[in-house]
Amino acid sequence: MMPNLVLALSGGIGGAKLALGLSRILPARDLLIVANTGDDFEHLGLAISPDIDTLMYALAGLDNQELGWGRRDETWSFMETLARLGGADWFRLGDRDLAVHVERTRRLRLGETLSAITADFCRRLSIGPRVLPMSDDPVRTRLRTEEGWLDFQDYFVRLRCRPRVREIIFTGAAEARAQPDFLTALLSEQLRAVVICPSNPFISVEPILALPGVRAAIASCQAPVIAVSPIIAGRAVKGPTAKMMIELGITPGAASVAERYGNLLDGYVIDSNDAAEAANLGPHVTLAPTLMTTLADRERLASVVLEAADALR
Amino acid sequence: MMPNLVLALSGGIGGAKLALGLSRILPARDLLIVANTGDDFEHLGLAISPDIDTLMYALAGLDNQELGWGRRDETWSFMETLARLGGADWFRLGDRDLAVHVERTRRLRLGETLSAITADFCRRLSIGPRVLPMSDDPVRTRLRTEEGWLDFQDYFVRLRCRPRVREIIFTGAAEARAQPDFLTALLSEQLRAVVICPSNPFISVEPILALPGVRAAIASCQAPVIAVSPIIAGRAVKGPTAKMMIELGITPGAASVAERYGNLLDGYVIDSNDAAEAANLGPHVTLAPTLMTTLADRERLASVVLEAADALR
Repeated sequence: MMPNLVLALSGGIGGAKLALGLSRILPARDLLIVANTGDDFEHLGLAISPDIDTLMYALAGLDNQELGWGRRDETWSFMETLARLGGADWFRLGDRDLAVHVERTRRLRLGETLSAITADFCRRLSIGPRVLPMSDDPVRTRLRTEEGWLDFQDYFVRLRCRPRVREIIFTGAAEARAQPDFLTALLSEQLRAVVICPSNPFISVEPILALPGVRAAIASCQAPVIAVSPIIAGRAVKGPTAKMMIELGITPGAASVAERYGNLLDGYVIDSNDAAEAANLGPHVTLAPTLMTTLADRERLASVVLEAADALR
Repeated sequence: MMPNLVLALSGGIGGAKLALGLSRILPARDLLIVANTGDDFEHLGLAISPDIDTLMYALAGLDNQELGWGRRDETWSFMETLARLGGADWFRLGDRDLAVHVERTRRLRLGETLSAITADFCRRLSIGPRVLPMSDDPVRTRLRTEEGWLDFQDYFVRLRCRPRVREIIFTGAAEARAQPDFLTALLSEQLRAVVICPSNPFISVEPILALPGVRAAIASCQAPVIAVSPIIAGRAVKGPTAKMMIELGITPGAASVAERYGNLLDGYVIDSNDAAEAANLGPHVTLAPTLMTTLADRERLASVVLEAADALR
């Protein structure tokens, strides 16, 4: 029997787009999506998991396509009132989005795991594929910048990625346990492909790779490992990937992302416009349109990725 | 110099109406409103203080007059989404209302007192008179009913006051300290009147009276103590007061409320329709229209109360 399980590693918006594409061309049971939790933080006393939520909203068709983040049909009464009370309003929490954070926080305090809560939320939102946090233990991305050490959301949202980045660390990663079903999937004979979604390598994918055992399990898994470049023509589709590369002394480009993943990759999908970068790359390269504007784009790219992976078996 | 400080004891909606009336005919510095906190509870991880909020919203002109509770211009996205996630939706929290609870909870966790937070919220909402919680220590009203012991909001909101009440207790009251400024006001030579607002005696006023020292301080204060009956023609304007009286074996009526307050009262304002009840009463009775529908009604009743109190000096 052909192995059928696709394991996708995802960060925020870009990753969620490809994950949605995969979810539409695969049976639900054949897709497992592992979400970065390095962006998670406590804010206003609430446990916020931005990448899990971005995935949930995208997979449930609840994502806000005008804003490009958050929930569809969102209202902002909470935030408006909070600001009037002198509360912190730099992290924009919509009224609907807030329900997820309040309920998650309540259940975490009762001792449920983030995995169990996420699974239940997905079930209630009629999401087919499994969405797993990379770990049930806290891992927090922190950045050393020219303005000193910053928590991730301070850097990313409050300071809008302005400070120049010198170094990135994942606090707690060394002591955290990768989610057991994630490791089991990597060891499974049913594994068809590991897909590294087009997310920021430094802050979305590397927190996942920093968990004990994950890098080794990916390197030794029997399925092809394939990434999709988050960089098109030297620029990130969204977010600070290219800016960070420059600040970290790396040439911004699809090739640099592949180098970052090193020998983990068997295959690499880069944008058709970046054909010139293919020459210098180690993994087998597939050229394809990687900009995902429409739902059809997402499905098409998902097919390209799976075909490329299957060809590498 | 004529004493000028009016101290009002208030529970929910009825009390807040008279407090608003007082606030419109008195200079802000001459009014101190003490709110019952026996209704406070933790819900969804949030510290909720319904009577304080009812007072704040009424005094700030932010109360929802259509619903008769909660905030004006409220939206319900949070609640709708929470229900979809399987969260508890029996206590209806509007999106704007929620901001108060989230911010209050955050500040309480940082160690601020409920008094300090309430004072700051009132300042930000441009509320003139001081609103004080009766105590910064937790006091929780619990009811023994035919369905067993119930927390207050379980009884009041979730079960809509349906279970027959046998007994009411105020957990924590014996160990709680009355808010110091409340006691100071009761001892003050500047005290012009103590006004017991038309709130439910059993669940709104008696938690305040149960705090150590409060009953004695009211009994011995040098100003007249005057109550307004929450019962008109044997019925509560709102809420379960009359129903509770029957269940507790008390004849529902203005007279029974006065008996409940006993020798604390110097004066008592009852509805003009209840003239027949005046005969049996100990304190000096004033007849007046006590149903407060319009803002003018609130102001008029506030004037009647203060004139009656001043006449008792």
